[in-house]
Amino acid sequence: MRLALDAMGGDSAPQVVLEGAIEAARADQLPITLLGPEDVLESLLASYAPLPPSLQLRHAPQVVAMDEHPTVAVRDKPNSSIGMGLEMVRSGQADAFVSAGNTGAIMAYATLRLGRIPGIERPAIGAVFPTARGKSLLLDVGANADCKPSYLLQFAQMGVAYAQGVLGVSDVRVALLNIGEEPTKGSQLAQESYRLLQESSLKFVGNLEGNDLPHGLAEVIVTDGFTGNVVIKTAEGVYELLMASIRKALTSHFHYRLAASLLRPAFRAVARELDYAEYGGAPLLGVKGVVVIAHGRSNARAIRRALAVARQAVESSLLEALSKAIASQP
Amino acid sequence: MRLALDAMGGDSAPQVVLEGAIEAARADQLPITLLGPEDVLESLLASYAPLPPSLQLRHAPQVVAMDEHPTVAVRDKPNSSIGMGLEMVRSGQADAFVSAGNTGAIMAYATLRLGRIPGIERPAIGAVFPTARGKSLLLDVGANADCKPSYLLQFAQMGVAYAQGVLGVSDVRVALLNIGEEPTKGSQLAQESYRLLQESSLKFVGNLEGNDLPHGLAEVIVTDGFTGNVVIKTAEGVYELLMASIRKALTSHFHYRLAASLLRPAFRAVARELDYAEYGGAPLLGVKGVVVIAHGRSNARAIRRALAVARQAVESSLLEALSKAIASQP
Repeated sequence: MRLALDAMGGDSAPQVVLEGAIEAARADQLPITLLGPEDVLESLLASYAPLPPSLQLRHAPQVVAMDEHPTVAVRDKPNSSIGMGLEMVRSGQADAFVSAGNTGAIMAYATLRLGRIPGIERPAIGAVFPTARGKSLLLDVGANADCKPSYLLQFAQMGVAYAQGVLGVSDVRVALLNIGEEPTKGSQLAQESYRLLQESSLKFVGNLEGNDLPHGLAEVIVTDGFTGNVVIKTAEGVYELLMASIRKALTSHFHYRLAASLLRPAFRAVARELDYAEYGGAPLLGVKGVVVIAHGRSNARAIRRALAVARQAVESSLLEALSKAIASQP
Repeated sequence: MRLALDAMGGDSAPQVVLEGAIEAARADQLPITLLGPEDVLESLLASYAPLPPSLQLRHAPQVVAMDEHPTVAVRDKPNSSIGMGLEMVRSGQADAFVSAGNTGAIMAYATLRLGRIPGIERPAIGAVFPTARGKSLLLDVGANADCKPSYLLQFAQMGVAYAQGVLGVSDVRVALLNIGEEPTKGSQLAQESYRLLQESSLKFVGNLEGNDLPHGLAEVIVTDGFTGNVVIKTAEGVYELLMASIRKALTSHFHYRLAASLLRPAFRAVARELDYAEYGGAPLLGVKGVVVIAHGRSNARAIRRALAVARQAVESSLLEALSKAIASQP
């Protein structure tokens, strides 16, 4: 097993990516190949010597910026850390690729270099999020802004394979994100997707609304990539606003501060439980290779978790499971 | 001025609706007509005697359940509290209608009894939410699951009129909810709506993403009713999950409890600042009458706030402003 890791992806790259990689190589004994400009990486890595032996470097001279246009990047930068990392997966030199870089670019390179799993109409990005009863996977969260009902059915099939293999859920419930409980509710897309899901062999539990998401009523929730993207970003925004408001309120008076400091461990526990860093990145499902996209704002722990998720996907033979899930459907 | 209030709408109706109405009539001197079955209301109101003189009762024998099918309700229950309240607005006996009842039914009755403002393609529901810099209005949040770009342009025009008249903002910025900053991002609907908004005479500031919503970068944000509904419900769900997690963490150890109790006023301040009850209901914009839909879980304070919002809409001549905003556009 070997994991290819984009050293140059993410808002705090390469520093935090290197730290996450070193932690993962040391503590989890993961064989990792870091991709990026050799001179940059070598000088940074020097301060961490001796490096764990399972950590390798591969020179990738080009870097894709976080806001670079995906098709331009793919065209002009064949030797970027993203392009070369995915090429390692394609050629079998690596079993998975992990990046906290430009999501659009990762998708574009992956579709081009790896291609789609036969039968898959559109790859999708899944986001794992915390619920009151464990974890759920929401997909698509941004790969396809416009969707057909058949895409949503395939997202559900891929999601079930992922939840079984990587999240370790045996009996996966599938739900449709919608704006009401009844089958007749929602957009045309939602109504037709409901019918397809109900006719499928999946364990479809019906519609869930936005406020149901944290309750863990289904392990896989499907929606179009526009809605899914808005949902995860809204959740992040609300979380941050609320935490900031609480922080401000608790430091607003002198006599709150001591009490607040006593409660710091409790707040940390909440933050840890709900922190995206714990959820280790979003799988890009449907391409012929294991690809995990970590949050652009990943810290070292988030990178380490994303690597662990990639390993779990490889060890659970996720690709075979996805292919089988798609092939078994009419 | 007279406000018609559906006494039977909401999860805790009629009790909390009556309490909210009495508070509003006493403290804000609002002339209110409560609609509902006379026997039910009279026996409940008896315990609040003497009632404020500006509070009246009107017998509405039928009640629409929260989960009743809107078209069935409209067909079978002409004399429901919703139907009769909107009829009061149509006939000029009331200047506005407020209900915490079945949203779909309120929309269906309102479209039927009041009709649309000339030029409006589709009425929309707006939701006012707290931001770091005041309040913003998101629309549509559920009236139209499938939208055309021209609807979104009209939502923006109506939203600006509302923000000026009711929220008291003079220089209203308009944004499009999208999944990226660039004009080429997002669904077909988003891309075409972007073009229309940019060509309009509105102060269009471009795309906002889900995590931007709490930052107050625009006073009016438009989206289709599917996405908008999922967004407000997701925000509500995340808020509740986080508050519940914090509550649990703070009571998890004996020695946290004293500190937590000292901080109770600070938590209350945060909850008050972010509580939907402070934002007083969602306007149904585009019908020929002022209609305010309060949250189904409204408490008495939320009802009182919704009534205040309705008064503000009447006093600011919202309907005329909406008509003008639409008429002034090509």
